[in-house]
Amino acid sequence: MSSKLRVAVLGAQGRIGSEAVRAVEAAEDMELVAALTRGDKLETLAETGAQVAVELTTPASVMGNLDFCIRHGIHAVVGTTGWTDDRLAQLRGWLAGSPETGVLIAPNFSIGAVLTMKFAAQAARYFESVEVVELHHPNKVDAPSGTATRTAQLIAAARAEAGCAPQPDATATALDGARGADVDGVPVHAIRLRGLLAHQEVLLGGEGETLTIRHDSLHHSSFMPGILLGARRVATTPGLTFGLENFLDLG
Amino acid sequence: MSSKLRVAVLGAQGRIGSEAVRAVEAAEDMELVAALTRGDKLETLAETGAQVAVELTTPASVMGNLDFCIRHGIHAVVGTTGWTDDRLAQLRGWLAGSPETGVLIAPNFSIGAVLTMKFAAQAARYFESVEVVELHHPNKVDAPSGTATRTAQLIAAARAEAGCAPQPDATATALDGARGADVDGVPVHAIRLRGLLAHQEVLLGGEGETLTIRHDSLHHSSFMPGILLGARRVATTPGLTFGLENFLDLG
Amino acid sequence: MSSKLRVAVLGAQGRIGSEAVRAVEAAEDMELVAALTRGDKLETLAETGAQVAVELTTPASVMGNLDFCIRHGIHAVVGTTGWTDDRLAQLRGWLAGSPETGVLIAPNFSIGAVLTMKFAAQAARYFESVEVVELHHPNKVDAPSGTATRTAQLIAAARAEAGCAPQPDATATALDGARGADVDGVPVHAIRLRGLLAHQEVLLGGEGETLTIRHDSLHHSSFMPGILLGARRVATTPGLTFGLENFLDLG
Amino acid sequence: MSSKLRVAVLGAQGRIGSEAVRAVEAAEDMELVAALTRGDKLETLAETGAQVAVELTTPASVMGNLDFCIRHGIHAVVGTTGWTDDRLAQLRGWLAGSPETGVLIAPNFSIGAVLTMKFAAQAARYFESVEVVELHHPNKVDAPSGTATRTAQLIAAARAEAGCAPQPDATATALDGARGADVDGVPVHAIRLRGLLAHQEVLLGGEGETLTIRHDSLHHSSFMPGILLGARRVATTPGLTFGLENFLDLG
Repeated sequence: MSSKLRVAVLGAQGRIGSEAVRAVEAAEDMELVAALTRGDKLETLAETGAQVAVELTTPASVMGNLDFCIRHGIHAVVGTTGWTDDRLAQLRGWLAGSPETGVLIAPNFSIGAVLTMKFAAQAARYFESVEVVELHHPNKVDAPSGTATRTAQLIAAARAEAGCAPQPDATATALDGARGADVDGVPVHAIRLRGLLAHQEVLLGGEGETLTIRHDSLHHSSFMPGILLGARRVATTPGLTFGLENFLDLG
Repeated sequence: MSSKLRVAVLGAQGRIGSEAVRAVEAAEDMELVAALTRGDKLETLAETGAQVAVELTTPASVMGNLDFCIRHGIHAVVGTTGWTDDRLAQLRGWLAGSPETGVLIAPNFSIGAVLTMKFAAQAARYFESVEVVELHHPNKVDAPSGTATRTAQLIAAARAEAGCAPQPDATATALDGARGADVDGVPVHAIRLRGLLAHQEVLLGGEGETLTIRHDSLHHSSFMPGILLGARRVATTPGLTFGLENFLDLG
Repeated sequence: MSSKLRVAVLGAQGRIGSEAVRAVEAAEDMELVAALTRGDKLETLAETGAQVAVELTTPASVMGNLDFCIRHGIHAVVGTTGWTDDRLAQLRGWLAGSPETGVLIAPNFSIGAVLTMKFAAQAARYFESVEVVELHHPNKVDAPSGTATRTAQLIAAARAEAGCAPQPDATATALDGARGADVDGVPVHAIRLRGLLAHQEVLLGGEGETLTIRHDSLHHSSFMPGILLGARRVATTPGLTFGLENFLDLG
Repeated sequence: MSSKLRVAVLGAQGRIGSEAVRAVEAAEDMELVAALTRGDKLETLAETGAQVAVELTTPASVMGNLDFCIRHGIHAVVGTTGWTDDRLAQLRGWLAGSPETGVLIAPNFSIGAVLTMKFAAQAARYFESVEVVELHHPNKVDAPSGTATRTAQLIAAARAEAGCAPQPDATATALDGARGADVDGVPVHAIRLRGLLAHQEVLLGGEGETLTIRHDSLHHSSFMPGILLGARRVATTPGLTFGLENFLDLG
């Protein structure tokens, strides 16, 4: 067996999945041992000696797939969504029975998006004001984006923990909607523009200065470095890890 | 009499007025002949041979001041606000009786702000999507700013005239306020941040590309180049001119 | 014959050409009557009754193709590069013999890029300082981009015509390259970053304010609206037109 | 004695010093006990029971001032520049003799600037490309700014430590200066624009995404929150601390 990390992709026919297949193939330290699509047998994972499974299927399939992986000691990097407290509890139960296996679930594999959230939360306590602007293509059906809502929640939590005062805002007369949506006290604005993909900006302001952290996602290939980084690290991180930020060295 | 333009400032004690006094004094092609404050006699304007009056007082004083100026053939550059249709009609009547006198009224003397509005309106018909973001210090009491509202109205008018389709927006579920205020079909977002002064961004998006026009006002001295430009041009532009954009050469 | 504009694409197999084929097919007011690739006979253009030819081939082919089009009264929209004074003179000669035929040559069909250049040149005389920043993917072999160089030249020409003073710059000690490249007195900075495609920013600064005009090109489909606009307008614009800006209504 | 922190300002007549006097007076948890200017006696610090001295004088005065402070057990927050290895060694020697006294020396008291540097260095290893752009008023005599140079050095060091490959750059033909200054392999670009004060942008790019961290300093009052934070923390941090980032909680 080569010294390369043996990686399988589940959901290999999807938009992100097919990109992941190519990314694993292109990674010098990895070997793609299986690319499963709907209907393929999970036994292939064991037969090909997969060490890490990249799980990019659907909420309907993910639990069965992870059950198989954990029983066979195959680590997993999971991009599939739909995680409830019940599901997480069940997953932790399975992992308790396989103490050397690691599972990484990440709502977002873009390193830039993860760093934006992390930095925004770290900086938020040092500025009087903070607002979030997210910008997406006009075919998006929800506003604000899940990432923007999560970012605002993390900011609000960090400010609450640090005992920050409410944000200053003298607005007395406003057009409806002008000041954005209120997410735990943090204004969030959603822009929809043809030509854009997915972008987010966190603006922080204090006496005489502002700090702006902006993430531009220009292609869904931006998830690949995070998926590969997750695959490399999950094998040596037993148990459940939630969020890619836990695998970034920000010391 | 020197060949320099003889300029008087009315409202010379105010924040903008005192800045205008300094700017006129510093302009090589101008001579400050009078700096009037509340209670000073208007006759000084005639006695000092003022050719142009820079009017920066209050809505309560402006009509009397302009009446005097026009009767004495003194051109005027007016930054004072509060212009109704009635007032404008009265002013046009006065000017009809003094056909060589010019008056410039400008809601905004910042050349950058004026160009932003002009360019945004020109570009708007060539893009599917357009939104306006304005950013101000948190002591501002209204949202959105008057400039942002006017910018959105100009954009909407230009799109209507060109027969543009409504903007694409698939939003189905939204937090209240997330998509901003609706000004004639153009979303407008207002951000309030400590550390900022007055800023505006117009985002235009089409197939595969975006165009962004941003104006940052970092000091109210930004009105001075526009006031000086107005003073130089108003003397050779009889009648009423509304808006500094009419004095910019954009050929 | 339908009332739709009958359009042919030459160079239909190329990256831009194949996109143009799709764009013409999708345009409600156009009919794609021919999509020619290398080796196809030009007679097809006449046989299919093409009214406008979109020429996206190579410098080696373009003159022969335009000769044929002009002789048959077929208008042309040309994206192929390599235009020398000699070639333009020859083209003008052909057009003199077919006075009702129109040809549009455009170095850039992105409406956003064209507007950026136009607005930058218009605004440049009203600000003391102006610099250009272009940002591209790291596989680009030249720096700065041709568009940035042309933008700086247009800015410099507009400032010279308006009699602007040289830009203020007190730099006394500098690292080599820090202040960018000098293009006719306008500093131009080139950034190369993985993840980017093609972007340009023009920064203009005056007393207390700045104006920023930014163009982001996120996909080469951004050329399509300009190509379609060119096809619609060239049929009623006899003779040679150089630059898409001449077809934009910026009144 | 009140429970407020007793703070003195040295160099109280300077631009930053006078701002610091006002900031200390306005802080609810502090009491300004002395504001010394050139020629005032240092004994005042002891007589007024100062707990923390904010040192904003000159390289010629700072060592004498700190010698006095440390001998009297007065903590110090130092913004004065000119620190050599020799001076730091001497300072450490003095502090060894007064083990409960703390001194904070900070090249930059702007929290936004410090966070920009910190975040840029943390993120740099996760992106293929990184460049620094600094933007200042045109009266600045050096290019790039000291902050930009230091930021680039921190980025380069972080990338070296993580074993990052050199940045991708296919530039084959370039105008002199177009690609900026090279600071340890990180391109740095300096823009000089009327209307600006002090601004810095770090651009990071990876597969399909970019991360931008931007700091805008709009007034030198931006140093005050950092100076106050330093004063609060230095009293409980014995010994020498170099850099405000050490007093920020970024966990």
